[in-house]
Amino acid sequence: MTSRRAFLQAMGKAGGYSAAYLSMQALGLLSMPRAFAGVPQLPAGSGKGKSVVILGAGMAGLTAGHELIKAGYAITIIEARDRIGGRVWSIRRGDRVVQDGRDDQICQFDSGLYMNAGAARLPTEHHGIFHYARELNVPLEVMVNVNRSAPVDAGSEIVSQRRAVNDTRGHIAELLTKSIDGGALDRELTSKDKEMLRAYLSDWGALTKSGSYAGSDRSGYSRPPGGYDEPGKAFDPLTLDQLMSHGDWGAPALFEETFDQQAPMFQPVGGMDRIAHAIYGTIRDHVRLGSPVAGVRSSDRGVTVTLVHGAPITADYCLCTLPANYVAKLDHDFSAAKTASLAGATYVPSAKVAWEAPRFWEDEGIYGGLAWTDAANTVVWYPSGGWNSPKGILMGAYTYGGRPNSVAFTHMAPEERLAISRGVIERMHPGKSKLLGKPITVAWNETQYSGGVGCLWTDEQRKTDYLQLCKPEGRVFFAGEHLSYIPFWQEGAIESSYEAIKLMRERTAADRVTA
Amino acid sequence: MTSRRAFLQAMGKAGGYSAAYLSMQALGLLSMPRAFAGVPQLPAGSGKGKSVVILGAGMAGLTAGHELIKAGYAITIIEARDRIGGRVWSIRRGDRVVQDGRDDQICQFDSGLYMNAGAARLPTEHHGIFHYARELNVPLEVMVNVNRSAPVDAGSEIVSQRRAVNDTRGHIAELLTKSIDGGALDRELTSKDKEMLRAYLSDWGALTKSGSYAGSDRSGYSRPPGGYDEPGKAFDPLTLDQLMSHGDWGAPALFEETFDQQAPMFQPVGGMDRIAHAIYGTIRDHVRLGSPVAGVRSSDRGVTVTLVHGAPITADYCLCTLPANYVAKLDHDFSAAKTASLAGATYVPSAKVAWEAPRFWEDEGIYGGLAWTDAANTVVWYPSGGWNSPKGILMGAYTYGGRPNSVAFTHMAPEERLAISRGVIERMHPGKSKLLGKPITVAWNETQYSGGVGCLWTDEQRKTDYLQLCKPEGRVFFAGEHLSYIPFWQEGAIESSYEAIKLMRERTAADRVTA
Repeated sequence: MTSRRAFLQAMGKAGGYSAAYLSMQALGLLSMPRAFAGVPQLPAGSGKGKSVVILGAGMAGLTAGHELIKAGYAITIIEARDRIGGRVWSIRRGDRVVQDGRDDQICQFDSGLYMNAGAARLPTEHHGIFHYARELNVPLEVMVNVNRSAPVDAGSEIVSQRRAVNDTRGHIAELLTKSIDGGALDRELTSKDKEMLRAYLSDWGALTKSGSYAGSDRSGYSRPPGGYDEPGKAFDPLTLDQLMSHGDWGAPALFEETFDQQAPMFQPVGGMDRIAHAIYGTIRDHVRLGSPVAGVRSSDRGVTVTLVHGAPITADYCLCTLPANYVAKLDHDFSAAKTASLAGATYVPSAKVAWEAPRFWEDEGIYGGLAWTDAANTVVWYPSGGWNSPKGILMGAYTYGGRPNSVAFTHMAPEERLAISRGVIERMHPGKSKLLGKPITVAWNETQYSGGVGCLWTDEQRKTDYLQLCKPEGRVFFAGEHLSYIPFWQEGAIESSYEAIKLMRERTAADRVTA
Repeated sequence: MTSRRAFLQAMGKAGGYSAAYLSMQALGLLSMPRAFAGVPQLPAGSGKGKSVVILGAGMAGLTAGHELIKAGYAITIIEARDRIGGRVWSIRRGDRVVQDGRDDQICQFDSGLYMNAGAARLPTEHHGIFHYARELNVPLEVMVNVNRSAPVDAGSEIVSQRRAVNDTRGHIAELLTKSIDGGALDRELTSKDKEMLRAYLSDWGALTKSGSYAGSDRSGYSRPPGGYDEPGKAFDPLTLDQLMSHGDWGAPALFEETFDQQAPMFQPVGGMDRIAHAIYGTIRDHVRLGSPVAGVRSSDRGVTVTLVHGAPITADYCLCTLPANYVAKLDHDFSAAKTASLAGATYVPSAKVAWEAPRFWEDEGIYGGLAWTDAANTVVWYPSGGWNSPKGILMGAYTYGGRPNSVAFTHMAPEERLAISRGVIERMHPGKSKLLGKPITVAWNETQYSGGVGCLWTDEQRKTDYLQLCKPEGRVFFAGEHLSYIPFWQEGAIESSYEAIKLMRERTAADRVTA
């Protein structure tokens, strides 16, 4: 790196900062994002005279339909459900929640309230989904993903995240300072390095002059500061032993730096499905709801899609955006390799519980964010938006594998899930669980046509099944979050759709030459 | 701590979690906030027949007026400026910015846009200011205070905050892991401690199995992941040497865990002055704008406030909420001790620069948050709210002491401040500075009646001058951010006002007995 940096510093002196910046950009040394340029360029009229049947009106199918129609393709989107959006599902008053082997639930929320049963966050680095929010003027608001005032419940104690995160930081800074002072890192660090790092650790960990951690007001106050003679009293620090002996003490700090979870995050105002609906609004006449697909077969001349109800549909091309576990069940004529790879796709179970309640958490100063628990419901997620309004939808569980108890949660009876969620909320907010009402619980593993919340590939499968499933099969192309390196996210569905569109553009051009 | 914890665990078994929780609460072991109960209880009618003249219509004066009038006091608020709010000042189209020794500026922003020249953030732990937003139905929205996509400019390189923060974390985790493995902490940690901490550090720092830091996608991608065969390419990690050799690489991580800066933060929709204005709306008829105070003197029977223009005002009591540096200049009859302490109050200089521009930063995926620079303007602060609308107000500087160059910035000529701000924005967003227009710059040290952005007390002064200035002087009581342990914040003004109200309640009761 040294030589590149030296080069750039010399450039900076010679040509000014802009020249150096452009060079750094070219060398990939800059991490600044650039305007989104990911939508495949489809020449106007390039799809004219060609028809595409798109299977599935989730984000992949809607995106493809929206872009292909601009290029003149005749599109038809076939959707099994009576709604668009797929795993982007905002549940509102009157909506019916159908789950395999469970009683139906009818949502009783007050008008204007909603539960995002599936997708619920927009990272700002997902430029594709932001592109559609901008193009179609969908109002956005911040989705608070981190709240230092929210609790961490680690079994026997409940503390605020500011205590868990900052006391941890303090102890780590102290231990590393001790190691430096004791000479343990003399081989790794020059004395100048040590001096600079030690100074940084002192600030970063809020250490005393001698380099020990004795607590900090970053962890909050047992008695808050006020006017006149009230300096406040900061909490005594949690000990490293206390912190480490609890299952979930590190959850907030680990979660919030995950690339896709970093601040700030957003949501459409009024429900996550607003972007999908905005796209739907541009192609509504081309979407057939309530039409489950039975099979897909292709010939040299076109594709035929058979439906569970009604006459088959023929088209020049097909874009299949259904989850792989659903595709595996279709009547199809795919290759043996494709069939084998479809069988290898693993879908992750996931469940949520939502309650309507007066916003008692805002009375306590908690505005949005997630509380973490090592109980089976994993999180309590406070609503963003509608601040200080009378009621809100409190997400009382969101599990997605990872821990045995959170996997077990997805297979529990709905009433068991509700009881666990209610119990944790009562522990975090004593006396308040009686305010919880109108529950809705959704498990994606019990949701027809989905069978899971997303597709999990192993590193090994990424080289085999995954690549196989990305390939077109005759005139059938494939997309969906499972065919991307941004799995589980709307962005993955969009990006995979772009890849499918590019293949279809090439195939269309080739077909015109040979026609 | 062990015995208390053992006691609580036993209680938890005996009486269920709620019993244990309440005990923990009583022992001060819980950090969960409780509903705000800070407004002093003033019995209805307790102020009847008594008059109060309040000096200053900033947050302290407005709060006091709002609460005292409920108890029946006859209040008059005297405000020097032609607006309320004091250092809560949202500047909009047509507003005149008057600065000592500078040309006046007239704000040319498009309608609906504003610059918060002073207060600009609401921490959710400031329950007093949130109380008024709730009581008076002031709509709030999230103020994005942390943005991992925003740049850090440390002189020769610009990187995203996700790189600076996460690469630092990785290096710290690696060095501490090496220290543990090398036995450097065998005296501090048991082998079980070491095992648990090492496992935590591995996750927390995204270390390899061998415990070294080789980069992480937490720091972002030089080529983002996408659909099909695009796994993305994460950045090479910045070296510890690179990170430490830059002045401001640690700024985001240090700033965001400050108690008053922790996520989430809020702002009133439409400008920070909306809460002050909502309070003003309840007492508007009692506020006299454009009336600078000349002096205040008290006798056994009342106070007399003299004005620069017009007849003096008499009242039973006075609440003086003016900054101490302004009080020092009044014609007053305070004690020698008070006078000396007034002279000891130090006000911090601070300057901001705001530009109107099309939202080019959102084209780059930066939605809110602060960019950090070691240049004299200290930060570039992207607007929160109005997402994806055509234009926004970009705060191109916010300095408040701390570094020599940021202090120097507050004393520069306005055009110098603008030039520095423009240059830094150009470096962070090459080619975009030409889009910046309609600048406004405010220095609080050049703003009449303020003379600084807040009062900075040394620890020593907190025991002397500070306590002296909290004391009433005859029938004159005092409040303001400078008389609180939450200095510089609206919350400090409110809390100090509550203390003054309590003293006034006692004095009123005493006066009724002796009358």
